[in-house]
Amino acid sequence: MALDDLKTKDFAFVGTRPNRPDGLDKVTGRAKFGADAYAPGMLHGAILRSPHAHARILRIDTSKAEALKDVKAVVTRADFSDKVPFEPGLEGEFWNVLENVMAGDKALYDGHAVAAVAATSALAARDALKLIEVEYEILPHVTDVDKAMLADAPVIREGAADYSVPEGMHPNVVRMHESGHGDVAAGFAEADLVVEDHFTTEATHQGYIEPHACLATLGMDGKGELWCCTQGHWIVQKTCAALLGIETANLRVTASEIGGGFGGKTTVFIEPVALALSRKANKPVKLVMSRSEVFRATGPTASASMDIKIGMKKDGTITAAEGIFRLQGGAFPGGPAEFTAMCAFAPYSLTNVRQVGYDVMTNRPKQAAYRAPGSPMAAFAVESVIDELCNQLGLDPIEVRLKNASREGTKASYGPRFQQIGLVQTLEAAKAHPHLSAPLKPGQGRGISCGFWFNHGGETSVSLALSEDGSAQVMVGTPDIGGSRASMALMAAEVLGIPYDNIRVTIADTATLGYNDVSHGSRVTYASGLATIKAARHAVERLCERAAKKWGIPVDAVKWENGCAVPSGPNAGDFDPLPLADITANMGQTGGPISGHFEATPEGAGVSFATHIVDAEVDPETGKTRVVRYTVIQDAGKAIHPTYVEGQYQGGAAQGIGWALNEEYIYGEDGRLQNSVFLDYRIPVASDLPMIDTVIVEVPNPGHPFGVRGVGETSICPPLAAIANAVSAAAGVRMRNLPMSPPRILSALKADG
Amino acid sequence: MALDDLKTKDFAFVGTRPNRPDGLDKVTGRAKFGADAYAPGMLHGAILRSPHAHARILRIDTSKAEALKDVKAVVTRADFSDKVPFEPGLEGEFWNVLENVMAGDKALYDGHAVAAVAATSALAARDALKLIEVEYEILPHVTDVDKAMLADAPVIREGAADYSVPEGMHPNVVRMHESGHGDVAAGFAEADLVVEDHFTTEATHQGYIEPHACLATLGMDGKGELWCCTQGHWIVQKTCAALLGIETANLRVTASEIGGGFGGKTTVFIEPVALALSRKANKPVKLVMSRSEVFRATGPTASASMDIKIGMKKDGTITAAEGIFRLQGGAFPGGPAEFTAMCAFAPYSLTNVRQVGYDVMTNRPKQAAYRAPGSPMAAFAVESVIDELCNQLGLDPIEVRLKNASREGTKASYGPRFQQIGLVQTLEAAKAHPHLSAPLKPGQGRGISCGFWFNHGGETSVSLALSEDGSAQVMVGTPDIGGSRASMALMAAEVLGIPYDNIRVTIADTATLGYNDVSHGSRVTYASGLATIKAARHAVERLCERAAKKWGIPVDAVKWENGCAVPSGPNAGDFDPLPLADITANMGQTGGPISGHFEATPEGAGVSFATHIVDAEVDPETGKTRVVRYTVIQDAGKAIHPTYVEGQYQGGAAQGIGWALNEEYIYGEDGRLQNSVFLDYRIPVASDLPMIDTVIVEVPNPGHPFGVRGVGETSICPPLAAIANAVSAAAGVRMRNLPMSPPRILSALKADG
Repeated sequence: MALDDLKTKDFAFVGTRPNRPDGLDKVTGRAKFGADAYAPGMLHGAILRSPHAHARILRIDTSKAEALKDVKAVVTRADFSDKVPFEPGLEGEFWNVLENVMAGDKALYDGHAVAAVAATSALAARDALKLIEVEYEILPHVTDVDKAMLADAPVIREGAADYSVPEGMHPNVVRMHESGHGDVAAGFAEADLVVEDHFTTEATHQGYIEPHACLATLGMDGKGELWCCTQGHWIVQKTCAALLGIETANLRVTASEIGGGFGGKTTVFIEPVALALSRKANKPVKLVMSRSEVFRATGPTASASMDIKIGMKKDGTITAAEGIFRLQGGAFPGGPAEFTAMCAFAPYSLTNVRQVGYDVMTNRPKQAAYRAPGSPMAAFAVESVIDELCNQLGLDPIEVRLKNASREGTKASYGPRFQQIGLVQTLEAAKAHPHLSAPLKPGQGRGISCGFWFNHGGETSVSLALSEDGSAQVMVGTPDIGGSRASMALMAAEVLGIPYDNIRVTIADTATLGYNDVSHGSRVTYASGLATIKAARHAVERLCERAAKKWGIPVDAVKWENGCAVPSGPNAGDFDPLPLADITANMGQTGGPISGHFEATPEGAGVSFATHIVDAEVDPETGKTRVVRYTVIQDAGKAIHPTYVEGQYQGGAAQGIGWALNEEYIYGEDGRLQNSVFLDYRIPVASDLPMIDTVIVEVPNPGHPFGVRGVGETSICPPLAAIANAVSAAAGVRMRNLPMSPPRILSALKADG
Repeated sequence: MALDDLKTKDFAFVGTRPNRPDGLDKVTGRAKFGADAYAPGMLHGAILRSPHAHARILRIDTSKAEALKDVKAVVTRADFSDKVPFEPGLEGEFWNVLENVMAGDKALYDGHAVAAVAATSALAARDALKLIEVEYEILPHVTDVDKAMLADAPVIREGAADYSVPEGMHPNVVRMHESGHGDVAAGFAEADLVVEDHFTTEATHQGYIEPHACLATLGMDGKGELWCCTQGHWIVQKTCAALLGIETANLRVTASEIGGGFGGKTTVFIEPVALALSRKANKPVKLVMSRSEVFRATGPTASASMDIKIGMKKDGTITAAEGIFRLQGGAFPGGPAEFTAMCAFAPYSLTNVRQVGYDVMTNRPKQAAYRAPGSPMAAFAVESVIDELCNQLGLDPIEVRLKNASREGTKASYGPRFQQIGLVQTLEAAKAHPHLSAPLKPGQGRGISCGFWFNHGGETSVSLALSEDGSAQVMVGTPDIGGSRASMALMAAEVLGIPYDNIRVTIADTATLGYNDVSHGSRVTYASGLATIKAARHAVERLCERAAKKWGIPVDAVKWENGCAVPSGPNAGDFDPLPLADITANMGQTGGPISGHFEATPEGAGVSFATHIVDAEVDPETGKTRVVRYTVIQDAGKAIHPTYVEGQYQGGAAQGIGWALNEEYIYGEDGRLQNSVFLDYRIPVASDLPMIDTVIVEVPNPGHPFGVRGVGETSICPPLAAIANAVSAAAGVRMRNLPMSPPRILSALKADG
């Protein structure tokens, strides 16, 4: 379907706001989350964790724990596969995961797992941990990204860097990304004003409410079952299989309902441990993390240290832009520096641009994806500098962004040319929005920011099956982290022409569907949606074949309209429309069950942009910031279920507010995490948030049959910068370091005099 | 593939005997059966059952039960859909099921459900039943098939008969089948000897060890989940959906491991009740039958009253055969009289044959399928008469059967012409078997019998998905009642060319695969096997496409050999063979996940025949029979996993021994079942059984890619007759009524003098 068709397409179901299919389950407590699984005779596991940020493990004696009557298994690294190869750099993915799941010769961060116990009760398991003796040789540690790059920094692991890192850099620098085009030196020379500044952000946690939990069974026959809360059970399946040394297909993984993930549940932590315990005890084993374990030993986002330099003419034209981004990724390779660098200047059409990113290892838990990983901190730094340039040149921040905005055909700062995109439309919508012209009170400031995310396609398998009564079931493999069951049902309803309520969407387990990539990269409504549409069209083809057979006319003389097969062309009007349910009623006798299938790695995920407007009020006495008004304007391509899209917009803004104002991992001099509970790690609560207004812009993505772009991640890209610009305006001082917590603001006000 | 290819095909995996994939789970207790499911906050259900064989329900007062603190829901018929239409005859299937699941205005048999309770414990639920007041008007009842056809018999239900029943028959006769060809009167006139006799068999239960059990959740949003032990969860899904008034797709049904079914778990009994209780209580509800409930209120087989008349020439040629079969099917239409009649003379190539079957209703629980439903009793009657003819004419029973045996091209007694079949081969194998010529001791007799079953195709959906490491998973929808996971893995291994242990076969739930017919009709290895082969070939096509793309050659120049893509034709030798795992390793980057799918209603299930040889010893003092030697010879088409095939052969014989010698439903004058526990209903135990020898004959079925015929049911067709013939020989008196229990044998000996 051409884009023009899409713009004017009259959708029957897409774009409506029906009830969510999982609503009743969730409000009545019937929904089963990670910790809700049960198996007869199951044991409970607990994990012993290193109290040291960096230490050699000289000896582990588990004999006293094993001697306890209630203890049925104790595992250490020796109970995992010894066939997982170590490879330098990022390639050794399974090895890194294994090393993170259970320490080998060194504990690399406070909280690193070193042993685990399965016992008849959770209490007995935790008690038994105290009887495991671990002899450590404490090593020097480093938790700060800039310090970790210094020549005298302790080395986390030799040989971890990949080919991209130039010789002479500290071994803690494991990957470097560099891209751009034009001549930045020449560009800066053309500028009327060049602003260069340094910015930092702290590691923040995704803050999902549900701790990691799983129930594992693995037999000595190498066959296992795993129930867990995850964003992607196929990656859990193949990773656990590799770590346990079994074939992938022999492990069946079922994803529970998920109480938040935001990127943090895209890898494994406790799952292989539960499987190893189960194999050793020959019983099912349940493992549930405490909140403190979630903070200490799962993946927060990377912290960042960034240098930005941008040159601008008096008319607002950006002449050159350069950024250096150092991302602290914890004790393993795999940080988001490449994404940070690539996203940094993506909203702008630039003649001269260069960005460099470094992934740096420290003695912290391995960073994990967090909603648009790497992009928000880049936007914070870049959009702060643009704000500063506008301030100093007296230019309107919307007009400057419109003048430089990326459009269809723009050569992106990171390489490719953009197809049809919606940044200009979000800026125009911002310009027209009453928020932008509303008066501010004294002590308040207004900030805006743009933000960018790639969005992703990824491997996707979807099947769809019809029932005799004409209802339909859709099998997808992407855990529903943002309402995708409703969106899939709407898209299937649109193609099949049957009511939304007659469609059940199920997140199939790994044993009952082909491979699916993780629910990440804002890919689900795009990729699983595209696959659902294609699978539904496949089923419609088969329905038309049955009608053609019944009518005795060629199949290409049958079209599908409003849930019915209809004779067309030379046969138009020859027969009454044949409803779907009339075809399925006796499908067993007319050729067999009717299903549709689609498997692919779709590559047309459209990039997406947003513009946020924030009003903030700073109390100069206490340094406390209050966000008083917030508007999210974002291009959704096509909003399948607008309520969920608005929810994503609001959720991204809410998490951005926490990240901007209060959240941070605080490490002591001893390398231990000091705030590993929600009392000390402050995420926003309802009273911290204003009503967040949303505006859905729809510039269709040509890579999706209905025009869908991902919406889940872009919404967290602008908030850090937009809030920082608002706070800087309110406080009268540029805030360069997140979080802008009361002490930091007071300190900035004091430094400013 | 032509049959000649099949006969000589060199299978790599098919025909081997690897370990069963569910073995460890079952011996360690890890396998989860119907009663092993658990949900947080679940309630326990119990069902109140009629103590009367036939009674009008005048009033049900549930208020006292509902007032109990622990009781969360009480349901009666009013809590089910009132939209299920009653239709005369067999068509009103859902209405009949509903009426059986929960009585309407009348209780129709001892054990008929009239109300149900959900409470916080099973004990509380059972206690609450006592507080439900039911006022009955007791009506006259009938439990015997011949009495039920008499003019003065009580009418079970007016209007239940379908169009096939001639006017003037009693309304309890609900269906009639008549078929045959030739002129039987002329045939009998040609005969040198005509034997005419009357035979009866009693209702027997399938005797599965696991009582029916389920865990149900249904919300007021019309979405539910059901875990249950069943032979077919799609039929459970659509039946329950209809009975509860919801869309089929909105109910997700998962089949547990099954502790035996044999046809008795092909419909629903407690599942809709548990769902209705759950909807009313808004909690998960578990329901588990007691053994007594299984006997009183599930479906045993039909009892039978049969008249057989066969004419034979002195040379053994059968000149005519006629049979009248009256099948007692309990309080609802749906008995197996048609099958009984059609199977009766199927082993023989007859010029003149006529068979008539009547399904008759009585005040007993509705009969259910039991392994080759209807066929064993027909074989008992027919093969007894043939035995008697051989005795009286002094002919060899094998030679007579060989002379008259159905062969390829024979017009079957029930209509069609047989394709390639293996009856003669089983008779030849019997003739050559040492058992047939082994000497008998005094007091022992030898009997033989042939048996026939149609086998079935049925609606089938199978998907197969590959993992990156080259292992594979097969998704089938037919519960594994006889080792089908092993057979599917072998067939998939054969097509894919990867090891059996690298393939996991999963019984998908209804929400994750297209429609599948029940595991019945000996259809699973045939139909799901065929679909597995086709799905695997579909995946192989895709593997070859990837190889062609990599090599840059046409896809038709790629063949699949020993688990590798191999260039062929003009490109032969151009590239090294590419193993499956090398293609799957990066399938996400070469086009996406690789799966294969197949949906159809295959119609080439080959009919199957068996010949059994039995030696029995009768103690004239006690009337006790001991089976001293037993040999099963049966055509499997192709034995995929011979150990399982042998198990089916032995299992059929074992159940046949119970049916022949001891098992029977005993009703009192009051219409109540008197032996509803295993202490009183005597199924064979190990000490009752000899070692049962097996001979697998393989005459390939042209309707299956590997030649498979169903094997599960034919094995129970000959035993009743073979044992009766052996017992009659040993006792010196023709046994015409089953079971041949000690009192019956003593009585026959006494009558014989």
